[in-house]
Amino acid sequence: MTSTQGAVGQSIRRLEGRAKVTGRAQYVHTLRLPGMLHGKVFRSTVAHARLLGLDASAARALPGVHRVLVGQDILAVMPDPHYGPAFHDQPVLALDKVRYVGEPVALVLAEDPHVAEEAAALIVARYEPLPAVYDEVEAMDSTAVVHEVLKPAGTFPDLKHLQGKRDTNIALDYSLRRGDPDGAFASADHVFEHRFRTQQVLHVPLEPFVSAAVPGEGTLTLHTASQSPSFVRIEIARLLGWPENRVRVQVPYLGGGFGAKLYIKVEALAAAAALIVGRPVKIALTMEEQFFTLTKHAATLRIRSAVTREGRITARECEVWWNGGAYADIGPRITQKSGFTAPGPYDIEHVRIDSYALYTNLPPAGALRGFGIPQLVWAYESHTDMIARELGIDPVEMRRRNILREGRPQATGTVMRDAAIEQVLERTAERMRWSEAFDRGSGTRRRGRGIAIGFKASVSPTTSVAIVNIYADGSCALYCSTVDMGQGSDTAMAQIVSEVLGIDIDRITVVHPDTDVTPYDMATLGSRSTFHMGNAVRAAAEDARSKLIALAQDVGVSVETTPIGEIFRRKYGMQAGNVVGSGSFVPAYTPTDHHTGQSDNVTPFWMIGATGVEVEVDTETGQVTVNRLVNVGDAGRAINPAIVETQLSGAAIMQLGFTMTEQMRFRDGQCVNPSLADYRIPGILDIPAIIDNERVDATQSSGPFGAKGVGESGTFGVSPAIASAIEDAVGIRLTSLPITAESVLRALREQQGRPLQAD
Amino acid sequence: MTSTQGAVGQSIRRLEGRAKVTGRAQYVHTLRLPGMLHGKVFRSTVAHARLLGLDASAARALPGVHRVLVGQDILAVMPDPHYGPAFHDQPVLALDKVRYVGEPVALVLAEDPHVAEEAAALIVARYEPLPAVYDEVEAMDSTAVVHEVLKPAGTFPDLKHLQGKRDTNIALDYSLRRGDPDGAFASADHVFEHRFRTQQVLHVPLEPFVSAAVPGEGTLTLHTASQSPSFVRIEIARLLGWPENRVRVQVPYLGGGFGAKLYIKVEALAAAAALIVGRPVKIALTMEEQFFTLTKHAATLRIRSAVTREGRITARECEVWWNGGAYADIGPRITQKSGFTAPGPYDIEHVRIDSYALYTNLPPAGALRGFGIPQLVWAYESHTDMIARELGIDPVEMRRRNILREGRPQATGTVMRDAAIEQVLERTAERMRWSEAFDRGSGTRRRGRGIAIGFKASVSPTTSVAIVNIYADGSCALYCSTVDMGQGSDTAMAQIVSEVLGIDIDRITVVHPDTDVTPYDMATLGSRSTFHMGNAVRAAAEDARSKLIALAQDVGVSVETTPIGEIFRRKYGMQAGNVVGSGSFVPAYTPTDHHTGQSDNVTPFWMIGATGVEVEVDTETGQVTVNRLVNVGDAGRAINPAIVETQLSGAAIMQLGFTMTEQMRFRDGQCVNPSLADYRIPGILDIPAIIDNERVDATQSSGPFGAKGVGESGTFGVSPAIASAIEDAVGIRLTSLPITAESVLRALREQQGRPLQAD
Repeated sequence: MTSTQGAVGQSIRRLEGRAKVTGRAQYVHTLRLPGMLHGKVFRSTVAHARLLGLDASAARALPGVHRVLVGQDILAVMPDPHYGPAFHDQPVLALDKVRYVGEPVALVLAEDPHVAEEAAALIVARYEPLPAVYDEVEAMDSTAVVHEVLKPAGTFPDLKHLQGKRDTNIALDYSLRRGDPDGAFASADHVFEHRFRTQQVLHVPLEPFVSAAVPGEGTLTLHTASQSPSFVRIEIARLLGWPENRVRVQVPYLGGGFGAKLYIKVEALAAAAALIVGRPVKIALTMEEQFFTLTKHAATLRIRSAVTREGRITARECEVWWNGGAYADIGPRITQKSGFTAPGPYDIEHVRIDSYALYTNLPPAGALRGFGIPQLVWAYESHTDMIARELGIDPVEMRRRNILREGRPQATGTVMRDAAIEQVLERTAERMRWSEAFDRGSGTRRRGRGIAIGFKASVSPTTSVAIVNIYADGSCALYCSTVDMGQGSDTAMAQIVSEVLGIDIDRITVVHPDTDVTPYDMATLGSRSTFHMGNAVRAAAEDARSKLIALAQDVGVSVETTPIGEIFRRKYGMQAGNVVGSGSFVPAYTPTDHHTGQSDNVTPFWMIGATGVEVEVDTETGQVTVNRLVNVGDAGRAINPAIVETQLSGAAIMQLGFTMTEQMRFRDGQCVNPSLADYRIPGILDIPAIIDNERVDATQSSGPFGAKGVGESGTFGVSPAIASAIEDAVGIRLTSLPITAESVLRALREQQGRPLQAD
Repeated sequence: MTSTQGAVGQSIRRLEGRAKVTGRAQYVHTLRLPGMLHGKVFRSTVAHARLLGLDASAARALPGVHRVLVGQDILAVMPDPHYGPAFHDQPVLALDKVRYVGEPVALVLAEDPHVAEEAAALIVARYEPLPAVYDEVEAMDSTAVVHEVLKPAGTFPDLKHLQGKRDTNIALDYSLRRGDPDGAFASADHVFEHRFRTQQVLHVPLEPFVSAAVPGEGTLTLHTASQSPSFVRIEIARLLGWPENRVRVQVPYLGGGFGAKLYIKVEALAAAAALIVGRPVKIALTMEEQFFTLTKHAATLRIRSAVTREGRITARECEVWWNGGAYADIGPRITQKSGFTAPGPYDIEHVRIDSYALYTNLPPAGALRGFGIPQLVWAYESHTDMIARELGIDPVEMRRRNILREGRPQATGTVMRDAAIEQVLERTAERMRWSEAFDRGSGTRRRGRGIAIGFKASVSPTTSVAIVNIYADGSCALYCSTVDMGQGSDTAMAQIVSEVLGIDIDRITVVHPDTDVTPYDMATLGSRSTFHMGNAVRAAAEDARSKLIALAQDVGVSVETTPIGEIFRRKYGMQAGNVVGSGSFVPAYTPTDHHTGQSDNVTPFWMIGATGVEVEVDTETGQVTVNRLVNVGDAGRAINPAIVETQLSGAAIMQLGFTMTEQMRFRDGQCVNPSLADYRIPGILDIPAIIDNERVDATQSSGPFGAKGVGESGTFGVSPAIASAIEDAVGIRLTSLPITAESVLRALREQQGRPLQAD
C-alpha cells in the first residue's frame, strides 16, 4: 500500500492549495443571502460601569436602519443569554453592567453595512462608573470585583466548587503539590527566584470574526468562521433551549484561527438577531474589532528553584497569575491544563505550583497558539538560563543535568512516554553547532546565542468522530469536523484514509465541517487534531476496510487483488452502493487530584519544541536582529513532513512577533493601538535570514501511524532563547515581553550606569 | 417505544410542510450564484435530419451573449458526450443528426436569461431531412431507422447482446414463455382477442427541469432537481472521465418528479457548459420545454386469451409495442420489468409475452408513475371486463375465478408472497357495494360502474445505503439520498428512525441528498424507497442502537432506562461525541432467463392497486362525469397511514387526467399543444365528488415494519375501470385513450348507426 499516491509520510501538496491561490475558496465574508441584514455592534467606551440607559433614537431614525437590539431584546429568544465554555458569564449583549472597553452593548441591523455602522455611532449610553482593575496580580485582592457571582458552565467537574462564589476575581485557583518543596528549599545549596511578565497580544487572523445566521422553521443555520462547530451547535442549542438537531453549523474555509475562533464569538449575537427579526443576519467584525473580542493572556510569573552546586534542580516553586480579562472564555482551562507544566521539562522531585485565572476589566483572553505554554516557557527557560550563567554552567549542559527523561515522572506524577525531550534538546544544540566556536561580533555589533526548550500536554479527555464513505468506483469521502484553518488538516486526514485504504489522494474528498453532516469533534485546538481526529479517521477507515473485506468475501474475491470498483460491481451488478465506516476516539485519562494535582495519566501525548537563536545587538540603538532561528520538534512520525516543517516555522515566527514587536497598549482599560498600523505583526524584514526546521526521529506509539500534533511546538522556546541570546551578546537580562529596541537600549544604559529618561 | 412521538404507524404531519407553505423551502429555480450564466437551448424544428450546419452569428452578436455552444464544443470536456441509463444514445447537444422536434442543438449563455432566450431564437440550422417514423408498430420494420448502431450502457447484462446491432428500431425485444399457449388456445372453449392503445402524455411537475453546475478546481458541483442524485454523479463522472468523488450533486426540495427527473436531463449540458466557460451555469427549462424533454410511453397492446366456458383463463398471449421516442432513456427497462406482468394478476397456466422497446422520431419517453403498468392494466383489465360481459359473468366474479392467489406462481414462475391481490379486489367490491342495487340513471343521463385491478413488481436488484448519526443530547440526523419530491419520504424515513431508536420525530433531522454527504441510493423511483431505503434506514438505526447499547454497557447503565444524553455524558464527561450507524440494503434477486423470462425471485415485493368508479354519461354530449372513485391498495403496514392515503388518491387523480383530459398531439412529429392551456391536466372540477382511499390490512414481511411502496398503486386500475363503467352505463367500449367527450359521443353515434363526421 505504500506506493499509494498521498499515503502517510509523503509531503504531498495541500488539497485546498489551488482553490486558495485561484481565489475560488469561499469564506463566510463572501457569503450573501437573500434578505440578509448586516449587524454592526455598538460597544462600551468604559471599562467597568453600571449601564443606566441607552438612547438609540437617532440610530433608529437613520434611513435604512431595520432594527436596533439591546441586551433586554435578546431575552425574547434566549432566556439566560450568557455563554462561555468554562463559565456562563458572558452576555450576548451587555445587560446591567459593562466590564471592559469594547464590550458589545447594542446591535444595529440594516441592509447596508455602512448604514448600520453609521447608526451604531449615533447611539449614546449612560453609565455609572465602577472601580476597575486591570493588573492580574492586583486583581487577586482588589475591591473592584468584575463578576458578583461565579457561574461555572457545569461541563468541567473541577469548576463545580466555584458555583455561586461571590466577591472574588479568581475564576480558578489551581494548585499542585509534589514531594516536600519546603524541606528541599531549606537544605538547598542555592536558591534562585525571578519574576517575569508577558504582555497582552492578539491572534490577528487575517479574516476577522464573522458569522451569518439563517432562521428556518424551528431551525437555525449558522455559517461561521469557527474552529469549533460542534461546540457552537451545542452552545447555541443550549442558549435557545433547543435540541442539537435543530441548529446547523457550517464552516467553510477559515482565514486563520490560532485559537481566536473557538467557542462563541459573534455566533450567539447573530443567532439571536436572526431569530428576533426572522431574516438572515450577518455580523462581520472589522480588524479593529478583533482587539475588543479576544486576546492572549498577559501573565505574571514568579519562579523559585532550589539547586545543588552541581546544577541539579531539587525543588521548584511556581506562581502564575493569568490576566483573563472581563470574561473567562477558556482561561480557567489554560490555568489548569498548562499550569501543571509550569516547572518545565525537568526532573524535579519537589514541586509546588499555584496558578490563578483572574478576571480584570480588559478584553477577554483565551486560547492562543500554545495555550499558555509560551508564557510559562518564557519564565522557566529564562530562569533556567539565568541559573546556569550564575553557576557558570553551560546552558545546554545545565539542561542535560536536569532534563525529564523517558520513564521518569512529571510534576503531576504521570510517567513520561514517547516524549523525545532529550533528543529535541540535543538535536537543537547540534543544529546550532553549540559546541563549536561562534563569532561574537565586535564594536557596537555584538552577537549571542540562546537556546530554550518547552513541552506541553494535550487537553484531555476530548472526543473525535469520523465517517469514511467509499464510493462504488473506489473513490471516497471523509466526513470530519476538524476545521482546516490553514494548518493542512484536510490533507493530513486524507493521507490517513489513503494509507489505510490504498486509495490515491485525488480520489479522496474531505467534506467540510457541517454539524448536520460531519460528526462530532471537540474542536480544532491545542494541536489535538492529528492525534485525536487522526485516530478517529484511522478507525473509520479501518472499519470501512473491514466492511470492504467482508463485501469482497461475499462475492468470492480478495480485496488485495481486486480493484474496489470491481468488488462493488460484483456485489450490486453495476456501479452502485457505498461502504460506510465510522470511528470514534477518546483517549484514556485520569483527572488530576483536586488538592495535589497528581494524576497517573494526565495527557494522551506530549508535545516538545526547542528553539535556538543567533542574535546581533546594536548597542547604540538597542536594535536586535535574529540572524538564525532553529526550530526542532517532536511530532512523532510525520503524516506530511513538509506540513510539519511549515507548522514549526510558522509557530516560531508568530512567537517572534509576540517576543519583539507585538503588544496591545492600554490606557484606563482602553486599547490605544487597535490597528495593524500601530500594532505591528512581523513583516518580511523581521524574518530571520536563516530558519532551520527539523523533526526528530520519534514515534508517538498511541498516535495514528506514530504521529502527534505539532501546531504549537514551534512557539515554545522562541522568547526565552532570544532573551538568553541577548544576555549572551551584551550581558543584559530582560524579564518582560516584548523585547523592543527601547527596552534593550534602556537595559544597556542602566548596565552602563547612564539610564534613559522615562517616558 | 410505541409511545414515541412520530414512531411507525402514526399519521404525523410532514416534516417539510411548514417550510413549503411559508415559502421558506428552497428550490434550484431560486438559486442565484455569483458570476452565474443562464443557458437557453436552441432546439431542432425537424423530426429526423442530418445536421448540415448552424449559423449562430446573429446570436453571438447580440449584446450580452457570453457564448454559444454547439455539439462539437462539448467534446472538449466530454470525449464521448452520449448519455443514458440503458443506452449511451443521447448526445448532450446534437452532433451529426437530429432525431426529434425539440432536440437540443445549441446552447446560448448569457448573464440575463431573457437575452439568452432572444439569442437562441436568432440561431439558424441547416438540415438534410431523413425519413421519419412516429408509430411504435410501424417502427418495428420501418426503413426509417432512428439510430444507426445500438450502444447499450453496459449496466444491464440483458442488453449486452444488442451491442453494435445495426438498422433496427428495436431497442429491446423482451419475451416470456410459460407452459404451452398454442396447445391451450387450440383446445379452448373461447378465444378472445383485443387491441388497445394509450397516448403520449406528460409528467407535468409544476417545477420544470432545472440544473445549475458550478466548476471548482478539478471538481464540479451540480445543484439539480433530480430524483436520482447518485446516478447523476456516476453518469457525469463517466462522461468527464473523472472519479465519483470529484462530482458533487446536491438536491434541495423538488417541485414534483413523477419519473421525469430521473437519470440525466439538463445536468450533462449544464456541467459541460460550466466546465467550458469556467463559470456557474444554470439551465432552467420552461413549462413548454418539458414537452420536448420526456414523455410517457404511448403503447399499442394486443391481448388474446383462451377461456373455458366457466370463465377460467387458461392461456394468454400479450404483445406490447412501446413508443420510446428518439432516445431510449429507461424505456428498455419498462419493456422488460413491466412487460412480464402483461397478463395481469391472474393465475394463467400458459403464457406468451412479447414486449418491444421501439425508437421513433418523437420526444423520448421514460418512467412515469407506474412505469408502464397503467398501459398494461388498461389493456388486460379492459380485456378481462370484455370477456366477462361476453360470457355473461359478473366482472368481479370473473376476476375471482382467475385471481392470482398467495402461493401460486406468477407468469415468471415466481411464487406470490405477501401480495394481497384477492383482499384488494374484495375490499374494492365491498367499498363499491358491488352486490347491491345501483341507480343506473335514466334519459340522457346514464350511470355505470366499473372495477379494475393491477399489480406491479419492484425494479430489482437495487441498492440503498443510509447513515444515522445520534448526537450527544439524543437528537439525531438521518443521511439518506432518497429525494422527497412531495411523496413524504423524509417523514416516513424519520419515523423508521424514531421507531427503532425511541427518539421523538422533532429531534430527528433528515439531511437532503448531497452525494458528498448522503450515501448511495439507486434512485427515487418505482415506489422502491419505502421498501429499499426503509430497510437500509432501519438497518442503520439498528446499527446505531447496537452501538448505543455497547456505549451504555461501557459506562454501566442500561439503554432502556437511561436517557441517551446521559449515556454520552457518562462516556465523554460532557455533551460530546456521536454514535454513527450505517445500513445497506439490496434484496435477493434471480435474473429472468433470457429466452423464457422465468425467474424464481423476480421482485422483492408486489404492489397491488384496484380502482372502482361510478360514472354518469351524458348521451347527448358524450360528457363523462366520474362521481365516485374508490382506490384500494396493498401498502403492507403503513409507516404513515395519512401519507399512504394521499398517495393512493394522488396517483388515481393523475391517472384520471391521463384517462380523460391529457394527450400530447403531434403533427409530423411536432407536438402541437405544448402548453398547459392546450394540454389540460385535471382541474378541481374534474375531481370526483367522492373519493375513497383505503389500505387493506396486509404485511410485507420483508419490508421495514411490514411496509412497502404505494406511490403508483393508485394509478393502476383507473383507466379500464372508467372504460368498463362507460360500457356498463351506455354499452359502448372504448379501447383507445384518452376517453374524451368526443370519443364517447363518436362511439355512441356509431352504436346508434349515425356516425359523426370525421375531422
